[in-house]
Amino acid sequence: MTLLRHVRPWGGDPVDLELEAGRIAAVGPHQPSREHPGDDIDGRGRIVVPAFTDAHAHLDSSLLGLPFRPHTGGPAIWDMVLNDREHWRDPAWSVTERASYTLGLMVAHGVTRVRTYAQIDVDCRLERFEAVQAAVAEHRDRCDAVVIACPQAGLLREPGVVELMEEALRQGADVVGGIDPSMLDRDPVRHLDVVFGLAERYQVPVDIHLHEPGHLGVWTLGLILERTRALGMQGRVTLAHGYGLGGVDAATTARLVEELAELDVAMSTVAPPQAGTALPLLDLTAAGVRVGLGQDGQRDFWTPYGNGDMLDRTWQLAFTHDFRDDALLEHCLAVATVGGASLLDPLSPRIGAPGSRSGVEVGDPADLLVVDGECVAQVVMDRPRDRTVLKAGVVVADGLVLRNHQPV
Amino acid sequence: MTLLRHVRPWGGDPVDLELEAGRIAAVGPHQPSREHPGDDIDGRGRIVVPAFTDAHAHLDSSLLGLPFRPHTGGPAIWDMVLNDREHWRDPAWSVTERASYTLGLMVAHGVTRVRTYAQIDVDCRLERFEAVQAAVAEHRDRCDAVVIACPQAGLLREPGVVELMEEALRQGADVVGGIDPSMLDRDPVRHLDVVFGLAERYQVPVDIHLHEPGHLGVWTLGLILERTRALGMQGRVTLAHGYGLGGVDAATTARLVEELAELDVAMSTVAPPQAGTALPLLDLTAAGVRVGLGQDGQRDFWTPYGNGDMLDRTWQLAFTHDFRDDALLEHCLAVATVGGASLLDPLSPRIGAPGSRSGVEVGDPADLLVVDGECVAQVVMDRPRDRTVLKAGVVVADGLVLRNHQPV
Repeated sequence: MTLLRHVRPWGGDPVDLELEAGRIAAVGPHQPSREHPGDDIDGRGRIVVPAFTDAHAHLDSSLLGLPFRPHTGGPAIWDMVLNDREHWRDPAWSVTERASYTLGLMVAHGVTRVRTYAQIDVDCRLERFEAVQAAVAEHRDRCDAVVIACPQAGLLREPGVVELMEEALRQGADVVGGIDPSMLDRDPVRHLDVVFGLAERYQVPVDIHLHEPGHLGVWTLGLILERTRALGMQGRVTLAHGYGLGGVDAATTARLVEELAELDVAMSTVAPPQAGTALPLLDLTAAGVRVGLGQDGQRDFWTPYGNGDMLDRTWQLAFTHDFRDDALLEHCLAVATVGGASLLDPLSPRIGAPGSRSGVEVGDPADLLVVDGECVAQVVMDRPRDRTVLKAGVVVADGLVLRNHQPV
Repeated sequence: MTLLRHVRPWGGDPVDLELEAGRIAAVGPHQPSREHPGDDIDGRGRIVVPAFTDAHAHLDSSLLGLPFRPHTGGPAIWDMVLNDREHWRDPAWSVTERASYTLGLMVAHGVTRVRTYAQIDVDCRLERFEAVQAAVAEHRDRCDAVVIACPQAGLLREPGVVELMEEALRQGADVVGGIDPSMLDRDPVRHLDVVFGLAERYQVPVDIHLHEPGHLGVWTLGLILERTRALGMQGRVTLAHGYGLGGVDAATTARLVEELAELDVAMSTVAPPQAGTALPLLDLTAAGVRVGLGQDGQRDFWTPYGNGDMLDRTWQLAFTHDFRDDALLEHCLAVATVGGASLLDPLSPRIGAPGSRSGVEVGDPADLLVVDGECVAQVVMDRPRDRTVLKAGVVVADGLVLRNHQPV
């Protein structure tokens, strides 16, 4: 048994947490003079919250840790795909090394669960997928991982992708991905038939990138929801981005939020800057929709943004919604922690309304972030660097540095 | 003479800078073994850029350095005014102490020039204005300051404000302010008559907060431009925010950008998150309009955002425009440095097109930021903490800590 002593759940009163078998076994008021036979971690009165889940990562593209590379490539999705294709073999580190470095950096900043895409196309074939599998295996004791086979360059634009996706699923991909069935692949029905067909054949959930804007986006979303219902895929579909929801009239958004909740379709956001792309976050969580936050590609061939720190991204989520009330800043941290966790496990607790503070109670996983701060709102604003990260009751990082890590 | 050796202007080749009488007297290639009789600052190969100008600060409202205070108050401008009015006397520190602390923090992070508002209304009368004057006097050797008499609660809504504004101008306010002549004060013609009348009587420039959205904002802007032209106030008017420019059709925006350039009306932005509020930044700077960046209120009764770090705000400017190209990230730093400086001195150099790198040449002020980094784009993304700040050739801060500062 490990005692995590003198921590304040969500900034509340000081408690001691007994951690056993990877879970919180007991929570009691902090007793300064408590005797304890096992391991003992001094929380120093810091705040404790559930560790982060990065619900939307692209570990196979990150260039973090390498010399800064001038950005190249155009603004459209296909421009970015081609720019990545032209350059992804250039870096001095292999894809495995890059993915492993970035995942380690994320854990060091507070992540203990990740949903990561691995690109599959006719150029890289399964090389990036296998590299991501190797990287998450290296960190398996620090971070749970779900690997999504992602047809980033489209399923249909280039022959051979579907077969490669199928091979990835045979090799253990956890989720089958799709991307912009209308805008990128130009044939949404066939695209979705393939994705849902693979999901059925390999008994895996679905995760679809949906950058499509406004009414195009919500139309495609409608096709996805029809198939979710018809195929009994409730609780097994996640939509990434879903920009369309932020770009149509409020009545349409409200109708779709209701349907997402009814079908238990989850969503991930990366807190994008563009007008008309922000998710209706409060409506979604109020309706009980599972919503997680992710860092997307981090300093890669698509974007120079992203730095491995989910607390920075939590600030960004608050900022892009112009949230100011403390309960709403806390809610952003709940999305980045409890919310993301519910994308990996649909049976784990939902976020609840702003102000609810779950995830640090008896029975919860001992995946915890201990962070210096006065209150959660101030932590989101200031993003303090004094952090300790626990995975299954074990300290895996301290002061933004991984413990016991020997890179392969 | 001071030698600032081994620095890379805008990330270019290493040089040594001779600093004399507060200016850059000579720039030459870095010579490792150079002998030098006077003061010597080792730049350690870091990047050097002009120091920041915060072109839009509210020093009299900041609560930085104090315990985090839960946010209160509603979302509208008048809600925020009333929330501030109810609480501004509560903090444990006086307004002078708070303003001085925040300005010191800003200098420690790289600011050497500030344009700050000081609220004047029937409640606080001149108390906040005098506190800001005291705070900028305390830091006068580290930071040039322009103090704007700001009728934050309106000029006309409450009787007595105009007389207080006039008294502030007699007591040395550098600029006469206005705010939302249509939306807040409901009588734009009378509001602008008062503002421009005071400007003429006291021979000071004008600075008008313009939160008004869309076509209302550009209509009010039109009234301001008419008066600027009619009264010969070219080069002496600054518009803060100017949200309307980001909320109307491109043709209207283009016409107004042209007129702003023709009349040399400057603009400040705080890189806001709300859709439809971003300035047409590249159009403005391409047209030669002076544009600066500021932090607005920082952790005050309006907002929990803002932390004294203009480099964080520069990242925010890039992020809100979704800039990714290196030249555009550099351009944001140019706005935050060269751009802001041109708001204090209309005769100082304009920013130029993205990619131009001014402000570190012979004759330029020796107000410099030396910062660790590979290139400017990476500095904007990573916001490194290893910084040295020079004001008029003298080191005033190092490692985010002020030198030789004894708070009053």
